[in-house]
Amino acid sequence: MIGARGWLRVVGLGPGDPDWLLPEARRSIQDDLIGGQARHGSDNRVELDRAAKALDLAAEGHRVAVISSGDPGVFAMAAAVLEAQFAAGAPSAWAAVDVQVVPGVTAALATAARAGAPLGHDFCVVSLSDNLKPWSIIERRVRAAMEADLALALYNPVSRHRPTQLATAFDLIRQHRAPTTPIVLGRDVGRPAEQVTVVPLGDVDLSVCDMRTVIIVGSSTTEVHQGVTGTPKVLTPRTYPDS
Amino acid sequence: MIGARGWLRVVGLGPGDPDWLLPEARRSIQDDLIGGQARHGSDNRVELDRAAKALDLAAEGHRVAVISSGDPGVFAMAAAVLEAQFAAGAPSAWAAVDVQVVPGVTAALATAARAGAPLGHDFCVVSLSDNLKPWSIIERRVRAAMEADLALALYNPVSRHRPTQLATAFDLIRQHRAPTTPIVLGRDVGRPAEQVTVVPLGDVDLSVCDMRTVIIVGSSTTEVHQGVTGTPKVLTPRTYPDS
Repeated sequence: MIGARGWLRVVGLGPGDPDWLLPEARRSIQDDLIGGQARHGSDNRVELDRAAKALDLAAEGHRVAVISSGDPGVFAMAAAVLEAQFAAGAPSAWAAVDVQVVPGVTAALATAARAGAPLGHDFCVVSLSDNLKPWSIIERRVRAAMEADLALALYNPVSRHRPTQLATAFDLIRQHRAPTTPIVLGRDVGRPAEQVTVVPLGDVDLSVCDMRTVIIVGSSTTEVHQGVTGTPKVLTPRTYPDS
Repeated sequence: MIGARGWLRVVGLGPGDPDWLLPEARRSIQDDLIGGQARHGSDNRVELDRAAKALDLAAEGHRVAVISSGDPGVFAMAAAVLEAQFAAGAPSAWAAVDVQVVPGVTAALATAARAGAPLGHDFCVVSLSDNLKPWSIIERRVRAAMEADLALALYNPVSRHRPTQLATAFDLIRQHRAPTTPIVLGRDVGRPAEQVTVVPLGDVDLSVCDMRTVIIVGSSTTEVHQGVTGTPKVLTPRTYPDS
C-alpha cells in the first residue's frame, strides 16, 4: 500500500505460536493485508537482499513490513535492514525511510520459559555462526562467558557448512564447567514439533542439534529439579555465593 | 479458583503497553479473573515472600498467576518462585506444584527495539544489583563483556542504597570502549512516560539513571545514524572485522 510517505517496520513473529505473537506485531501484519498488499517472498539466507528490496519499496512511498521470526532485534532482520540503510549513507533515498522495530519473543527466552528460569540471572547470548565474523571472536566470547561464570545461550549452533564448530565450543565449555552443569536444548520451541531437553553437560549429545536448536549452558550455580510434568525445571538463582 | 489440582503460572506483563502483552499472558490473567479470583498484593522487594504465598495457594489446589513485569525469566519472579520451590526440597507440598512460565518482552529487548538493533549481534545481560551477589562477580562479568567486545545490557543500574556502583562500572567500561561508543538509556519503555536517549559514552550523564532505566553499552562495532524521527538509530552489525 502506498502512503503519503513510506515506512518500514521490522516485525517479530516470535517462535511461531500465535499465543506468543504480540498484538502490535499481529496488527502490523494485518495492516499490510488491507488493500493492495503485495507479498515479496525471499530466502532467509539472503537477508541483505530482502533488506534492500524492503528499503526500495519504502523509499517509493510504500508501507513495508519485513517479517522476522523470533525477535527481529536478536540475530535477525532488524540488524540486516539497518546495515543496508547505514551502508547507503545519508544522501540517499534509503536514509529517509523511517525504520521501526516491533519486538518478539526470541528463541533463547522462549526456551528458557519452557525450562523454568535458566536465564534468571546474568547471561550471555552468542551466535556460533562464523559466516560474518571470524571464529576467533566467537571463541573469545564463549571463553569470556565461561570465565565470568555467566549462563550462555547459543544461537545457530551448527549448519551443514559448519559441522565441527559446536564440538569445538563445547570442548571450551567443558574446560570451565562441571559435567553436572545443566544444558537445555530447545528445538522448535513454540511450534507443534517443540522439543525441550535438559541434560547434564557430561551426557550431552551434540549430534541432535541443528540450526533450529538453541542451547542454554548453565553457570556454576544453575540447578535442576525434576518437575511435576515431563521436563525437569532449571534455575539459575539470583543469589551468588560470596567468593 | 480451586481446581482438582493447583498450578502456578508466572506470567510476564512485558513493559506495560498492552500492545506488547502476549495473548497467552493476557489469557492467563483473565482466566484468574473469572470466578472467585482473589488478589494478593505484595511489595516488589519481598519476592521470596510472594513466591512462598503463591506456592502455598497452589499447593492447596488453587490456580495461581504470579504477575511479573517484563519477562519473568529475566531477573524476575520465575527465578524467585523456583528458588523457593527448590529450597523446600522434594518431600514437600510445594514440590508437587507445576510451575509454568509465560514469557514477556524484557526491558533490554524493548529498549533495543526502540533504538534500532543495538543487540543485533552477540551480547551480555548483567544486573548491577549486589543485593544477592557480591560486587566482585558483577565487576568480573562487566569486565568479561568489555574484553570480549560484547554489547552489554545493564539492569537495576542504581538504587538509593547503591548510589556509586554505576559510576564504578562505567569507569571499567571507559577503560575498554572509545568515548564515541553509543550508549542507549531506556526508561519506562513501553509506558506513557517512555524515554529513550542515545548518547556517546564520553557524554553520558549517569545521574539521570534510576532503577527503571535499562542501559545498553555498544561494542566496538556499534554505530549510530540520525534517524528520520527524533531518536537516532543504533546498530550492532552482524559482521565483525577479521582480526
